[in-house]
Amino acid sequence: MPKGTKQVAIIRIEDGRRKRVEDVVVKESPLTIVFNGQQLVTLLCSPEKLDCLAAGFLFSEGLIGSRKDIKSLDVDEKRGVVWIETKTGKMPSDDFLSKRYITTGCGKGTSFLDLPRGKLKRIKSEIRLSPSQISALMKEFQERSATHKETGGVHSAALANAKGIVIFSEDIGRHSAIDKILGECVLKGISMKNRIILTSGRISSEILMKTARAAIPVIIAKSAPTDMGVSIAEKSGVTLVGFARGKRMNVYSNERRIRD
Amino acid sequence: MPKGTKQVAIIRIEDGRRKRVEDVVVKESPLTIVFNGQQLVTLLCSPEKLDCLAAGFLFSEGLIGSRKDIKSLDVDEKRGVVWIETKTGKMPSDDFLSKRYITTGCGKGTSFLDLPRGKLKRIKSEIRLSPSQISALMKEFQERSATHKETGGVHSAALANAKGIVIFSEDIGRHSAIDKILGECVLKGISMKNRIILTSGRISSEILMKTARAAIPVIIAKSAPTDMGVSIAEKSGVTLVGFARGKRMNVYSNERRIRD
Repeated sequence: MPKGTKQVAIIRIEDGRRKRVEDVVVKESPLTIVFNGQQLVTLLCSPEKLDCLAAGFLFSEGLIGSRKDIKSLDVDEKRGVVWIETKTGKMPSDDFLSKRYITTGCGKGTSFLDLPRGKLKRIKSEIRLSPSQISALMKEFQERSATHKETGGVHSAALANAKGIVIFSEDIGRHSAIDKILGECVLKGISMKNRIILTSGRISSEILMKTARAAIPVIIAKSAPTDMGVSIAEKSGVTLVGFARGKRMNVYSNERRIRD
Repeated sequence: MPKGTKQVAIIRIEDGRRKRVEDVVVKESPLTIVFNGQQLVTLLCSPEKLDCLAAGFLFSEGLIGSRKDIKSLDVDEKRGVVWIETKTGKMPSDDFLSKRYITTGCGKGTSFLDLPRGKLKRIKSEIRLSPSQISALMKEFQERSATHKETGGVHSAALANAKGIVIFSEDIGRHSAIDKILGECVLKGISMKNRIILTSGRISSEILMKTARAAIPVIIAKSAPTDMGVSIAEKSGVTLVGFARGKRMNVYSNERRIRD
């Protein structure tokens, strides 16, 4: 049984016949992030890599920039709490939460309203990828997701370069799966430069904002984008590839990075 | 082109060959809810049925109980704002937003922490459904989703009885798709008693909380549940059917409502 799953007794019905069987479902748990002594937020997530999720969430929200900003990080896996103290000890503004967008998926409500497009630097990476490299990456990506195969209940995300996957993560939320990736990069000092995000989920505006903030030049998704996702990708210089399935894919923006 | 979609110019790659084509993506827009004069929250959503989404969100959050609680509701579709005034004029507590869970999917962050299980009345509906009725409902459900077929970018939800679908909605978020259903019931005074929720999305704790709060006795999903979803379904008396595909389905809780 993969990590992060639980056995439950269910009734399976097939063609009207009932059978009592044991099935595997994915676990969901609360994670409370205490930031500089103040309870910031509680996420519902898959209870793995809590330190990465907390760091990635704070990175996505602009509350930390790199490992150097973190003074201490403590995890209580059992209670689902991560305490992070930063060197500056600065708190987010009072309206940090009230200004958050409550969003389309997996609820990582980025402070999008507060982030004028102008603040996003246009990404200038010279990475180039061929369609066959993209197909190979997505093949490796799908082979990695044991929990998804077992339960159908999680999203996957990965950081990759043209040759293969560097970091892989899973979460019941598509936003948290990506935050776990970004957080692992932050905590371990792994470079995100000239790298690629792979995701099983749909590409809404927030997912693109996370990619753009991390200055990651390419995002490849198995699923569809929204119009707002496409528009942010265009403006921030991210190459957005959607519906990447087998040897097919759609390039929605900045196609210059897709070589023959 | 279905409502709520937009044409974009993309590069389609198939077996290494590039083609410039027009593709259809789903729209994503902000909706700000102003509650008794105060800006409560901004959701990212599919820009349809904004009145229903606002009413459903407030219902799910326990801020309104029925149509009778609403003094006025005004919609500015262009700017994406809904103003709702209640008869009592009462505001949510100051920590309404900070106490919210940021959640697994589609971010409707229910105030789950604030809602002890004891407050959820156990649902006592005597509705009974056969497996073939469930299969027929899911067949009708999938046939209805034009936007999903066109764009792959939305979730669907429906309110049904044993014979068929009563209300249908789509949204880029699985939570908002359900809130649109609940809100339409609230605004039009449609009974949710002895009815069924159908959803394309995964069943995390929040989705179950919405169903349980509305005292809807059955939820049927195409996708997987989480362990927390199953546990809330058991305790609140909701019959949870997952992976309902063709003539197969899994019953995770309260199977007494599934008859032969």
